[in-house]
Amino acid sequence: MRVLVLGGDGFCGWPTALHLSARGHEVAVADNLSRRRIDVELGVQSLTPIQELPDRLAAWREVSGREIGFHELTVGKDYGGLLALLKTFRPDAVVHFAEQRAAPYSMKSAQHKRYTIDNNLNATNDVLAAIVESGFDIHLAHLGTMGVYGYGTAGAAIPEGYLTVKVETPGGWTEQEILYPPNPGSIYHLTKTQDALLFQFYAKNDGLRITDLHQGIVWGCQTAETRLDPRLVNRFDYDGDYGTVLNRFLIQAALGHPLTVHGAGGQTRAFINIQDTVRCVELALLHPPARGDRVMVMNQMTECHRVRDLAALVAGLTGAEVAHLPNPRAEADENELAVENRRLLAFGLEPITLAEGLLMEIAEVAGRYADRVDRSKIPCVSHWNAERARAAGAGLDVAAE
Amino acid sequence: MRVLVLGGDGFCGWPTALHLSARGHEVAVADNLSRRRIDVELGVQSLTPIQELPDRLAAWREVSGREIGFHELTVGKDYGGLLALLKTFRPDAVVHFAEQRAAPYSMKSAQHKRYTIDNNLNATNDVLAAIVESGFDIHLAHLGTMGVYGYGTAGAAIPEGYLTVKVETPGGWTEQEILYPPNPGSIYHLTKTQDALLFQFYAKNDGLRITDLHQGIVWGCQTAETRLDPRLVNRFDYDGDYGTVLNRFLIQAALGHPLTVHGAGGQTRAFINIQDTVRCVELALLHPPARGDRVMVMNQMTECHRVRDLAALVAGLTGAEVAHLPNPRAEADENELAVENRRLLAFGLEPITLAEGLLMEIAEVAGRYADRVDRSKIPCVSHWNAERARAAGAGLDVAAE
Repeated sequence: MRVLVLGGDGFCGWPTALHLSARGHEVAVADNLSRRRIDVELGVQSLTPIQELPDRLAAWREVSGREIGFHELTVGKDYGGLLALLKTFRPDAVVHFAEQRAAPYSMKSAQHKRYTIDNNLNATNDVLAAIVESGFDIHLAHLGTMGVYGYGTAGAAIPEGYLTVKVETPGGWTEQEILYPPNPGSIYHLTKTQDALLFQFYAKNDGLRITDLHQGIVWGCQTAETRLDPRLVNRFDYDGDYGTVLNRFLIQAALGHPLTVHGAGGQTRAFINIQDTVRCVELALLHPPARGDRVMVMNQMTECHRVRDLAALVAGLTGAEVAHLPNPRAEADENELAVENRRLLAFGLEPITLAEGLLMEIAEVAGRYADRVDRSKIPCVSHWNAERARAAGAGLDVAAE
Repeated sequence: MRVLVLGGDGFCGWPTALHLSARGHEVAVADNLSRRRIDVELGVQSLTPIQELPDRLAAWREVSGREIGFHELTVGKDYGGLLALLKTFRPDAVVHFAEQRAAPYSMKSAQHKRYTIDNNLNATNDVLAAIVESGFDIHLAHLGTMGVYGYGTAGAAIPEGYLTVKVETPGGWTEQEILYPPNPGSIYHLTKTQDALLFQFYAKNDGLRITDLHQGIVWGCQTAETRLDPRLVNRFDYDGDYGTVLNRFLIQAALGHPLTVHGAGGQTRAFINIQDTVRCVELALLHPPARGDRVMVMNQMTECHRVRDLAALVAGLTGAEVAHLPNPRAEADENELAVENRRLLAFGLEPITLAEGLLMEIAEVAGRYADRVDRSKIPCVSHWNAERARAAGAGLDVAAE
């Protein structure tokens, strides 16, 4: 099929574009390269030496013999460009990664909150409005987050998008299925809950076919395709804003730095390996909802772990120490989490487990590129609110760790 | 108290600013005059001859001896200006009307969808982020809409913002109170459901005190203050985009035009008079939630009616005929609706009923200014989706009514 990948230069978008191309789909990428500009803003860079996008695409052509088109455009601002691209490329599916995706970045300041809201919501609405205006029957697959659900489930497994509840009516308590009540933990997560409402509306009003993939926290860096050539390497973030927890532990371990756990580390989160991310996206594209169906929601995750257990696992493998720091996030320090992920398993996903994949990550990435690390960028310096900032001494204690 | 009214030049904002000023509050208005530019875009004007905002404010000074400050600024774009205004004016409360508020306008085209999403969501987020950054304990009162609830309630009255449901847990079905599951009927209504998620987040994360007023369809034009001088007259919209159903019936009747009912007119909606709107806003400001409370939601409406019953009422008073047209909106043609509005009644609201207020509107506005009507602007030409546009002959049948 023909697939347009919006945000195809990012951490998930790039390996997804390669995977879809390797699987024989005709792929084009649209991106405004904003993720690279945020690196400059934050004074950080990917642990892995990523190439400019045109060089990446040239390397892919050389290695695979396959062509991926590139369209530099800001989804959410350049509506005319996006609509024209839909009309000329005529994709069967659009994969939408064109959003600011870091919770800590979204909480850094009022300007970062504003950028995240403006960028993410206008991007999603522009894609939906352009699909309607194109008149084509294009399937939209969007990368959402497990974070839309919040993390308090009273012991019940989080279902895939919809929740059966009983509602009191004059005839008694009757069952209804509702969109799972959202409880976002950051401005970034909030935008994904607002996206979900956009999807519900366009599916209902215009009959658009939409899949929302609520993804767990991604770990790992490389996929089968990005390993084919050093110029195809995927980005690996370890900084306090964009680095996800497990990747940060790996790089801390490689440096002999203590693994920094926020609070008691009792936060339970859902995880997925980057290789499984790209497989899930293709599985979603191969199993679209029918026209007129409600939004298809799938939980794109494979394992749940407590943060302190992950730290213990990495410490056990590497000999690293564990340090507990004040939590800059306004979140519960302890929670239970269980998640349904039957849909993607039924479509054939065979998950990569932490137990089998972690050592390869350590050898392949964290150890290999450890000399590229800027240690000053490891601390988390984005605080969720005034109280958390005060608790951390306005960030000074953490920055001085 | 000191009150900043965002969007204080609009249909609800202007009489609210006057009412609060008349009640002895210190009032300032921020507005970018966008509503007047939309009049130009649509080639329509208020039935009533409204004055430029500086002239309105000068007239108010002359009539009342009270000063209302005016700050021309685009909420949602000029964040620095908004933050500076909060810091210098130091309001106790902000009333947020700074949103595009017409459902048909939001559905006219992709560009109108884009404008509504961009304007409304960035405006709301900017206000919230600026209140946090100001560090002041400012109460935010926002004008939401009954339309966030959708219009299918299975016979139960719509509660004020939150719904008690039973959720299955390992221990059995347990009661929880959730934000009422949203079911917006247009892009405009959608933005209000997305606003509600912004409010939930900022109340939880930053302890902001927020009241969300889910308003019914407003009818009427004048309030005690706007009647004091012709230069203070409130705007009255009768066009297919901005005119609300009852006001459109009144002007159609005054012209001897048939009252245009969409479909069978079985849509039941909640209504409120503009005079009650401004009273409700003050009542909300006088009863803010405490810091740390959840978002206070109140249903700001006083009566529910079926559209065809309203048409029959106006026809009975005026002798007008009733015409049924294809519905340009994607909505149910028949629904039941019952709404809780105990909070505002408990705070002292004494509603103006249709039965007592309708004749005054006919005499005071619709009849008096009927010679200013542009009949070509009465038809609804904004269609919700491709199917509704086809059903109406791409708008030609309706435009030719």
